[in-house]
Amino acid sequence: MNKKVQPKTLPGFMELLPNEQILFNKMKETIQKSYEKFGFLPLDTPIIEDAKVLLAKAGGETEKQIYRFEKGDNDLALRFDLTVPLAKYVTEYYDKLSFPFKRYQIGKVYRGEKPQRGRYREFYQCDVDIIGNGKLSIINDAELPSIIYNTFTKLGFNEFTICINNRKILNGLFASLELEDKSSEILRIIDKIDKIGADNIKKELLEKIKEEKVNTIMKFISIKGNNDNKIQSLKNMDINNEIFQSGLNELIEVIKFIRIFGVPEKNFKVDLTIARGLDYYTGTVYETFLDKYRNLGSVCSGGRYDNLAEYYTDKKMPGVGISIGLSRLFFQLIDNNIISAKDESIFDVQVIPMTNQYEVCAEVATKLREENINVQINMEEQKLGKKFKCADNLKVKYVIVIGNDEIKNNAVTLKNMFTGEQETINIEKAIDKIKG
Amino acid sequence: MNKKVQPKTLPGFMELLPNEQILFNKMKETIQKSYEKFGFLPLDTPIIEDAKVLLAKAGGETEKQIYRFEKGDNDLALRFDLTVPLAKYVTEYYDKLSFPFKRYQIGKVYRGEKPQRGRYREFYQCDVDIIGNGKLSIINDAELPSIIYNTFTKLGFNEFTICINNRKILNGLFASLELEDKSSEILRIIDKIDKIGADNIKKELLEKIKEEKVNTIMKFISIKGNNDNKIQSLKNMDINNEIFQSGLNELIEVIKFIRIFGVPEKNFKVDLTIARGLDYYTGTVYETFLDKYRNLGSVCSGGRYDNLAEYYTDKKMPGVGISIGLSRLFFQLIDNNIISAKDESIFDVQVIPMTNQYEVCAEVATKLREENINVQINMEEQKLGKKFKCADNLKVKYVIVIGNDEIKNNAVTLKNMFTGEQETINIEKAIDKIKG
Repeated sequence: MNKKVQPKTLPGFMELLPNEQILFNKMKETIQKSYEKFGFLPLDTPIIEDAKVLLAKAGGETEKQIYRFEKGDNDLALRFDLTVPLAKYVTEYYDKLSFPFKRYQIGKVYRGEKPQRGRYREFYQCDVDIIGNGKLSIINDAELPSIIYNTFTKLGFNEFTICINNRKILNGLFASLELEDKSSEILRIIDKIDKIGADNIKKELLEKIKEEKVNTIMKFISIKGNNDNKIQSLKNMDINNEIFQSGLNELIEVIKFIRIFGVPEKNFKVDLTIARGLDYYTGTVYETFLDKYRNLGSVCSGGRYDNLAEYYTDKKMPGVGISIGLSRLFFQLIDNNIISAKDESIFDVQVIPMTNQYEVCAEVATKLREENINVQINMEEQKLGKKFKCADNLKVKYVIVIGNDEIKNNAVTLKNMFTGEQETINIEKAIDKIKG
Repeated sequence: MNKKVQPKTLPGFMELLPNEQILFNKMKETIQKSYEKFGFLPLDTPIIEDAKVLLAKAGGETEKQIYRFEKGDNDLALRFDLTVPLAKYVTEYYDKLSFPFKRYQIGKVYRGEKPQRGRYREFYQCDVDIIGNGKLSIINDAELPSIIYNTFTKLGFNEFTICINNRKILNGLFASLELEDKSSEILRIIDKIDKIGADNIKKELLEKIKEEKVNTIMKFISIKGNNDNKIQSLKNMDINNEIFQSGLNELIEVIKFIRIFGVPEKNFKVDLTIARGLDYYTGTVYETFLDKYRNLGSVCSGGRYDNLAEYYTDKKMPGVGISIGLSRLFFQLIDNNIISAKDESIFDVQVIPMTNQYEVCAEVATKLREENINVQINMEEQKLGKKFKCADNLKVKYVIVIGNDEIKNNAVTLKNMFTGEQETINIEKAIDKIKG
């Protein structure tokens, strides 16, 4: 073998060192456990789908980004989100599912975007969705913020805000102003308020809409106060439009139940500037921000949609869901020193023979494992110093060293690698120490 | 929306119903926890790699099966195993890893095989490997059967046998018979012993090799008795070949340490007919069979290899590893009624309002979740009977029903869906019941 291929992970593909991977997996598991606490069923759809099925709905930017290829006679594509596979799934297995169908899916999706810092071509999405058969209670829209609250609390965050709006309020407002045909455009402008500020929003709107109407919109998006104040202000606007009123009633119901579901007042707020994309969502919409790191953008978004699987079936299946883009979130948290992986370890103990006490080391490791302790052993012919350095690199908490003295005394030397403390004790005592 | 696309999962791609997925995930998690108990670090490499990197080693059948495609200027391929990505990884991050490097990876791999019953094009592999830097102690070869033993025991199996051999014994034997040039061919024939039996093996061998030599081979592969008998018989064969003796010594050491690592005698055996593929493995090899379902083939295989990353680097990195093909195993276990998913549920309790007691139901669900109980609520306008049928389909153990009587008495009605037993009690008592 002379000619070597240079191994290289492709740009835009996240690949972590073990300590980072441990932390990433912990976060993923925390999200999973949180989703399961709310009774969501797991799903694991294929990454490869028939391109015709996957692209039934797609178009424009999405279609350009998609990984699409042929294998034999098959026109294939990699999933670019977890929503389209869900639509496929509920249509395909409709008769075998109970509705409302509550599922979570945590998996990789693929978009051939231009790779940028913190933007990945392969990334994890962690989704929960509730799908109704024909109709779906608005109370579900209030349970999702409760899931967001639980998940981010369990992830170790306290200071975050779930921002809630309702697309019907926006659509109704535009209808009352006879601006329906411009609503997508207006929403796109409003959506930028965090980036460019209210003054620039107004400037952009004035290029397209009469001042009087712009003033109403600006009045609307600058509604202030606590959640109840905002709802009162919306009522006070006295917009004579059915869709507006329906959205407002939904929002009132959602806020009422968010409170019942135990989300503290400081962790959610009505935010009338949130629109979330252009044509997918039809009712409640969510975005979630870390209060001290609002610049990271939304860390968990979602909303209500009228008709999940309209491209596949005539059956009307409304749904509501949220998604955490875990790969991007993880990158941002590490990159901003909000979390650190440097002390992560998957196992508690490394067993090291002083010279060639391999048999006793294997026995001790086995005993510890029987006690449900995660143990690695290092049986290599390396110098003791090198073995300790290795244990140190792996951030293992305890090292057990066994040499002839230990064997003679039927004992082990247990060293706490964090404190430096070490003692020669019998194995049972060592197990107690490690477990305590 | 008039023209609908018929949604269909591609043939050869496993997609499970929720109860099956719950069981599948439990098995996957059991394997993961078992791998972690032995101190293996998690890894999650990309599914898409540069085709040049991924195919550095591949050839023949593998190359034909590969999913390979272009995106922009990139020649890409989907990983077809987890070993090549590992070789890439240890070469790329060599300076940042501690050796011996012990990693597990559980993930999907892709092979465009002809789809057959129980053969998938996308399937999970669950791998552990130990990679040395320059050299690697033979004791590692004994730790892996201990991992197999622990994993399959935790998966609920008792009657399984880990079969162990050493390729050097086979290679040495052939060398002593001056049959090195035919060794691949002979191994391929021997490998079929389970399928075609010893007589047919002999017949096939006689077509290629002189009778005297065939007799030695047949004597070798028919060595009988317990593990110690077999090792004694191997010694007695008195083969004057260095490789043979080196393999025998390794096997003796491996058997000795397998015992120290606590694997019961009934769960492992020396099996001299096992060869495992043709050119990858160089020392110890493993296959694992469920005793009552030997026809399923090996459920966990692996072995020792001399040089993991020779296509990428001059650094010699010997390794030893095992792999469980989880998707195929799961299919086989279900298909043979060895396991059943029909009663699987992810949550313990479903809360159901009698008519419109939504607020109290939301409160109760929140209280239960705070007690770490997995709870689903059904807030839909459905008849009570339909809600119960839904709970029944979901195999949930408890249903909590709340109506006006319950609210008046500050109580809930807790029904055990398995026993039919039901009682109206206060929420604290219900929590105790559910937790107990």
